[in-house]
Amino acid sequence: MKMPDAHENVPVEEMDSSLGLSLSVDGPSNIDSRELGISKDPLLFIQLNELLGWPQALEWRETGRWMLFEEKLEVGAGRWSAPHVPTLTLPSLQKLRSLLAKGLVLLDCPAQSLLELVEQVIQAESLSPELRGQLQALLLQRPQHHIQTRGICWGSAHPKKASHDENIPLKEQGQNSLRQKLPPGAEAAAVLAGELGFLAQPVGAFVRLRDPVVLGPLTEVPIPSRFFCLLLGPPAPRRGYHEMGRAAAVLLSDPQFQWSVRRARNLHDLLAALDTFLEGVTVLPPGRWDSTARIPPPKCLPSQHKRLPSQMQEVEGLSRARRARTEDRDSHEPHKPTLELQRTGRLFGGLVQDVRRKAPWYPSDFLDALHPQCFSAVLYIYLATVTNAITFGGLLGDATEGAQGVLESFLGTAVAGAAFCLMAGQPLTILSSTGPVLVFERLLFSFSRDYSLDYLPFRLWVGIWVATFCLVLVATEASVLVRYFTRFTEEGFCALISLIFIYDALGKMLNLTRAYPILRPGSPAYGCFCQYPVPGGNESQWTRTKPKDKNDLLTMDLGLVNASLLSPPECTRQGGYPRGPGCHTVPDIAFFSLLLFLTSFLFAMALKHVRTSRFFPSVVRKVLSDFSSVLAILLGCSLDAFLGLATPKLLVPREFKKGAGFHLDLFCVAVLMLLTSVLGLPWYVSATVISLAHMDSLRRESRDCAPGEAPSFLGIREQRLTGLVVFILTGMSIFLAPVLKFIPMPVLYGIFLYMGVTALSSIQFMKRVQLLLMPAKHQPDLLLLRHVPLSRVHLFTAIQLACLGLLWIIKSTPAAIIFPLMLLGLVGVRKALEWVFSPQELLWLDELMPEEERNIPEKGLEPEHPFSGSDSEDSELMYQPKVPEINISVN
Amino acid sequence: MKMPDAHENVPVEEMDSSLGLSLSVDGPSNIDSRELGISKDPLLFIQLNELLGWPQALEWRETGRWMLFEEKLEVGAGRWSAPHVPTLTLPSLQKLRSLLAKGLVLLDCPAQSLLELVEQVIQAESLSPELRGQLQALLLQRPQHHIQTRGICWGSAHPKKASHDENIPLKEQGQNSLRQKLPPGAEAAAVLAGELGFLAQPVGAFVRLRDPVVLGPLTEVPIPSRFFCLLLGPPAPRRGYHEMGRAAAVLLSDPQFQWSVRRARNLHDLLAALDTFLEGVTVLPPGRWDSTARIPPPKCLPSQHKRLPSQMQEVEGLSRARRARTEDRDSHEPHKPTLELQRTGRLFGGLVQDVRRKAPWYPSDFLDALHPQCFSAVLYIYLATVTNAITFGGLLGDATEGAQGVLESFLGTAVAGAAFCLMAGQPLTILSSTGPVLVFERLLFSFSRDYSLDYLPFRLWVGIWVATFCLVLVATEASVLVRYFTRFTEEGFCALISLIFIYDALGKMLNLTRAYPILRPGSPAYGCFCQYPVPGGNESQWTRTKPKDKNDLLTMDLGLVNASLLSPPECTRQGGYPRGPGCHTVPDIAFFSLLLFLTSFLFAMALKHVRTSRFFPSVVRKVLSDFSSVLAILLGCSLDAFLGLATPKLLVPREFKKGAGFHLDLFCVAVLMLLTSVLGLPWYVSATVISLAHMDSLRRESRDCAPGEAPSFLGIREQRLTGLVVFILTGMSIFLAPVLKFIPMPVLYGIFLYMGVTALSSIQFMKRVQLLLMPAKHQPDLLLLRHVPLSRVHLFTAIQLACLGLLWIIKSTPAAIIFPLMLLGLVGVRKALEWVFSPQELLWLDELMPEEERNIPEKGLEPEHPFSGSDSEDSELMYQPKVPEINISVN
Repeated sequence: MKMPDAHENVPVEEMDSSLGLSLSVDGPSNIDSRELGISKDPLLFIQLNELLGWPQALEWRETGRWMLFEEKLEVGAGRWSAPHVPTLTLPSLQKLRSLLAKGLVLLDCPAQSLLELVEQVIQAESLSPELRGQLQALLLQRPQHHIQTRGICWGSAHPKKASHDENIPLKEQGQNSLRQKLPPGAEAAAVLAGELGFLAQPVGAFVRLRDPVVLGPLTEVPIPSRFFCLLLGPPAPRRGYHEMGRAAAVLLSDPQFQWSVRRARNLHDLLAALDTFLEGVTVLPPGRWDSTARIPPPKCLPSQHKRLPSQMQEVEGLSRARRARTEDRDSHEPHKPTLELQRTGRLFGGLVQDVRRKAPWYPSDFLDALHPQCFSAVLYIYLATVTNAITFGGLLGDATEGAQGVLESFLGTAVAGAAFCLMAGQPLTILSSTGPVLVFERLLFSFSRDYSLDYLPFRLWVGIWVATFCLVLVATEASVLVRYFTRFTEEGFCALISLIFIYDALGKMLNLTRAYPILRPGSPAYGCFCQYPVPGGNESQWTRTKPKDKNDLLTMDLGLVNASLLSPPECTRQGGYPRGPGCHTVPDIAFFSLLLFLTSFLFAMALKHVRTSRFFPSVVRKVLSDFSSVLAILLGCSLDAFLGLATPKLLVPREFKKGAGFHLDLFCVAVLMLLTSVLGLPWYVSATVISLAHMDSLRRESRDCAPGEAPSFLGIREQRLTGLVVFILTGMSIFLAPVLKFIPMPVLYGIFLYMGVTALSSIQFMKRVQLLLMPAKHQPDLLLLRHVPLSRVHLFTAIQLACLGLLWIIKSTPAAIIFPLMLLGLVGVRKALEWVFSPQELLWLDELMPEEERNIPEKGLEPEHPFSGSDSEDSELMYQPKVPEINISVN
Repeated sequence: MKMPDAHENVPVEEMDSSLGLSLSVDGPSNIDSRELGISKDPLLFIQLNELLGWPQALEWRETGRWMLFEEKLEVGAGRWSAPHVPTLTLPSLQKLRSLLAKGLVLLDCPAQSLLELVEQVIQAESLSPELRGQLQALLLQRPQHHIQTRGICWGSAHPKKASHDENIPLKEQGQNSLRQKLPPGAEAAAVLAGELGFLAQPVGAFVRLRDPVVLGPLTEVPIPSRFFCLLLGPPAPRRGYHEMGRAAAVLLSDPQFQWSVRRARNLHDLLAALDTFLEGVTVLPPGRWDSTARIPPPKCLPSQHKRLPSQMQEVEGLSRARRARTEDRDSHEPHKPTLELQRTGRLFGGLVQDVRRKAPWYPSDFLDALHPQCFSAVLYIYLATVTNAITFGGLLGDATEGAQGVLESFLGTAVAGAAFCLMAGQPLTILSSTGPVLVFERLLFSFSRDYSLDYLPFRLWVGIWVATFCLVLVATEASVLVRYFTRFTEEGFCALISLIFIYDALGKMLNLTRAYPILRPGSPAYGCFCQYPVPGGNESQWTRTKPKDKNDLLTMDLGLVNASLLSPPECTRQGGYPRGPGCHTVPDIAFFSLLLFLTSFLFAMALKHVRTSRFFPSVVRKVLSDFSSVLAILLGCSLDAFLGLATPKLLVPREFKKGAGFHLDLFCVAVLMLLTSVLGLPWYVSATVISLAHMDSLRRESRDCAPGEAPSFLGIREQRLTGLVVFILTGMSIFLAPVLKFIPMPVLYGIFLYMGVTALSSIQFMKRVQLLLMPAKHQPDLLLLRHVPLSRVHLFTAIQLACLGLLWIIKSTPAAIIFPLMLLGLVGVRKALEWVFSPQELLWLDELMPEEERNIPEKGLEPEHPFSGSDSEDSELMYQPKVPEINISVN
């Protein structure tokens, strides 16, 4: 998916200017290009300079600035406010309109400097010569800016007087860190407003410069100005001119108004654009809304489609609604073609098509990786993959063979992943033996044990069968069936896996406390002797060591010669035999393990939430949050090492068992990996979370974004190299074996619990389960709840819970071997739900299956009540891009 | 503080109606009574009935309702939306204005039923007879309401046709649970809007009924309607009539408009009121604000003062600002007279004044308690007091005398508290030996030990001196000096106490792990014999028990006759002696104690946060949150009892030590209590948190509040009985002694930590400390930061931190005996800060001291920059009542 660069310099298309100036014109001709037009106009930086200090100490001071949102100068605090949505009063807009209507409007003014501009404006006003002189001097006076350079603030501390050389940009202007944020080609607009006691009449002027020109020190950044707006007048109540100046600035920051005013031919066009703006404003009643509260910028800007003529809106609306529904799934697979999966009808037709589509990009897939961003991505993803492999590999077997599992996991992941990166259609997907594979393997293992089968050959045969099926699926292009896996199926499966994670983590911790029992008072496991060989053996040896060995002093007191209180390991070392029920008990281990388990779980959870906290710079927060698992494991290991207790650790094998079974095993995994990669089935062994993190670490974002605006997404640096390097490093991690023995098992269980809880809380299903516990009054304002009766929502949730219970029961019986088939069962249940729920309800609760989409008329996407069909309120929200969720599989 | 009942029926004052109709009239004559007038008008319930289903199935349906905020019918979901701030479009308001200007306006219409009303409206419209008939039938058609009764929803399931008896309220209307929320005397306004294909011209009518009358099934609640607004017309784009109907309803929900329209004499008055509304609206620009997002109701409604004429605003503003500054402290002491403390100049003058002021209320202070609310308050406050006494009493001494401390705490609290309740000026304050007293007592104790003094006599003398000083203070009316304790002093002290709590809790836990060491591998403390008396003693006894006793089997194997592996207690019971370094070691205790500590701390923290969660009904949440400490202690005890480990517990004395020292002790406490209660010094032994909870549990709130509105505070049920009963119960709690021995010390330490952390996080000082770690960009939008440069804020915080460090150092040295004097030291530091910070900065960072307030001219309250003196934005926020904070002392 090579996306076009947003800052490409496409020549601005000239369009019918009347279209933008009045909203009532139904001109559906070139809406798209018009939207394009808005985005292609240069970005406008707007600054409000206010005239303050009347009458003694007149000075211009920058008190506000706008790009998308408003930033206000906090005069007392000497800093810019956070960007916020500007609020205006209606009278200020009305006064501005009448002032503009009466005042001077110069469009395409040829002035080349501030002096020329001021002269032209002053000349046009009907003022006495004396006044003109005063006014000109005032306008040429150097304004005070609050400029934030790196660390140093210029501002009220440097009240310099007017410079004569007013057209040369100042040093402090050049040092402004804001300038680096403005994209090349950005233009400025200066609004000058204030009260001037010697004026009898208001003076209003609006100037559009023919060629944008740097107006000396007028704006805080030395970029060329396109617009100049002057609003002066006699003292007015309620800071009238301040509010008018703000209104003018907010107007200029509106893209629609900007577009129109850039193309306005006369005063009438200008006023029409203002009226169009007024028609679009949102009005909040007084007294119900604290007008001084600052509204934070929305996460994503509302689309401009509402301001288009109504016909286009409907046509566009439907297709957008469709797109919004499927966006959720697309976000996992950004390379999945946006055109729906279609069968070609030929054998291996889909495969051939995929290869053809991908082949031309193959060389660039390696060259594109030569970017510094890719190096940091490699480090991050490598650590995540290794953490994953350690956690899952360590848990794959019992504690006694954990490290073997980790090493197998390293090698398997490396071989399969590297092959995948080289050959697959979606090379950014990171492979790992994660949740579903783990469950499947454990089921196979217990099945083979129950039926006394040899595990490895049995597993090989299963692998071969699966590979055969996959080949058949590829040949018959069955992957179009993926469309039947709606959110219902995905979330049901995800919830099951998450629950297995949680259950396993807790269960294994419970087993630990059984293996290391707690010593209660009156517990029989008390005391331990060290018994020496019977007298006559090597007794002389013992008597010799007595004076040196403090612990043996007791034997003297007791008059014993054949027993001491040495600790069991020491006893064994000295040739004795530990005797007594307490010898096999290691105290403190159970509770310490529990502490390690809780610590690693809570620490990982806390670190994950650091990302949304206010503390630390965002880079630090991102690192802490991204490496939460790694850091939690490190903390657990440190705690364990500090106390030095004999907690159960990952056991490292003396030698890596590279037998025939393992070769076959690997081969099988590799073949399966290849097949699934060709098939593009995401639920099988792709590690969703890591894959998403991989893509996230490679995302290209616009850097030059306005304050308050979220950076816009430009695309993903797609290539095959980062993944390849990650997997090579993973393979080389088998040399980590000596380090692994320091990792306590309870820490891994804690991370396991963390993964389960995190995955479970990320799905919409859980949000609906939570609704069951919330009084209707306190429920969040979910779109879902606006459209589906609560009882129906609860019914849907209950059915999902019942399915989950059924899956859990099946998993716990010998029928567990049909585990993969359960997915198909869920698809069946989902199909049956069409008898219970209306398509509209399913659209909100889940998503539509292919047939349903076809069967529903276009009108069907609207709610069932005809009279609210034109309820444009909701459709607006539907268009907003959703945040990608973790739906399909766990980690 | 007896507050007037908000629902008292004071006759509505008639006022000059022109005042409300135009904003520009500068009539400062009777502003207060006018504000009063607005609140005395009956509450208005506004309902929008929309005409839907054109052309086939015309029906009226209620789609929105308003009291303070908007509730929208979610047609698909069949439920009312959450209350939210309504947003309108400007064109809808303008169209409404022009329709009203052209349409019918009937003021003081004498109609007595819906039929009469409809007839009058129809007659006045210029329509053909046929159209009139159609329209009349349509208007009499019964609308569909979405009525929420308890559990059952009437609505789309019951589409009943028009009833003939349209003036009789329906059964379902009567069952409407909304009705119980409306205060008696509430009136309704019905807005009917819709598109009607057969109309050529819009039909608009606005009717004010002379006498409000129940208009049959028109409104969902059968209350009398005062206003009726009809907006019909030919089909219009963009749901024009829906939006106009909403605009009319929002207009009617505005108190200012309501007030004016109730008094309007003609169309001109009506339109003037609408224009006044328009002048006050807040405008959000299109494209920067998602107009479909629903704005939740603000926590407190903005005051209406901005809409008053400007002169009054300024006068009112200053006094309000003053009040807002001191509100914080007043909230602790609701009985502190709002007039500032003034010296009378006579000996004991203040005391005499206090007694005179309080005496008349004394009888009613007991009679007022006969209210069910008081019984639940007693239970809640009793549990809180006992928990407090257990926690603090348990920690007062060492673990070995903890329970003795608890019992002393019970008795002391009971005697002092009961006396306080009977005599004090602020009987709702709950006494307890809390933080500062605890610290002071421990300092006295260590001091007496260091200097080899006898503790109890020493303490008595200290008490007598303190009492003497207090008497002198009372006599000289020194309590006016309390004004010098600004937030700086209070928070510094609070932070110190909190830190001592946290330090002590952690330190005591660390001591526990030393007392119960962890058994590391190779630790010498391994093994324990049970040694029997030497052969020749009662050996025969032992040989006899051998076959029965499993544990003794080992003695056979080892060939030992004088030792076994019995556990130490069992060994002692059977007459043996435990021997060996492992005998005194109790394994697992250290980690289990740590677990108990963490569990009770985290559980209490989590329960405290339940109050703000969305789960469970608010009653359940309140109970869980209120009893967080009790529940956490219970959980800890259950966990401990379940595992049955020998964790350190509160030790209960065999007999209660009722010696002379204790008598004196109690007497001293009582005298001190009496004196401090007379003095009203809040920092001494009042348990701030519990006192606040006590008041909170006795608060009287308005029940009949509109959806989305926070219940308004009517006053506190002030009496002396609840406190008295609580203290009597506390005294009787000494019989709890047998239960106390089940409480593990680590649980108490956990609660102690929780109290420290909670108190620490509640003070503004900590919020400023957090600012040190936040990048400026991510800092919250605190008013403080809008007015004081960040560097100055940090400087203030740093000085406070330095003071805190100094206090900590002093506390750790023998100089600690001057601990109470440190408070005065803090006042001195605060005084010195006047040289560093400007009064404006101190106003925002702290509050002003008495002299400063006097020295600063009225203008001084404004920021220093003259040009932003009229920045009305901030003053608005200053007027909002602040949430009471916990400032002075801890629990």
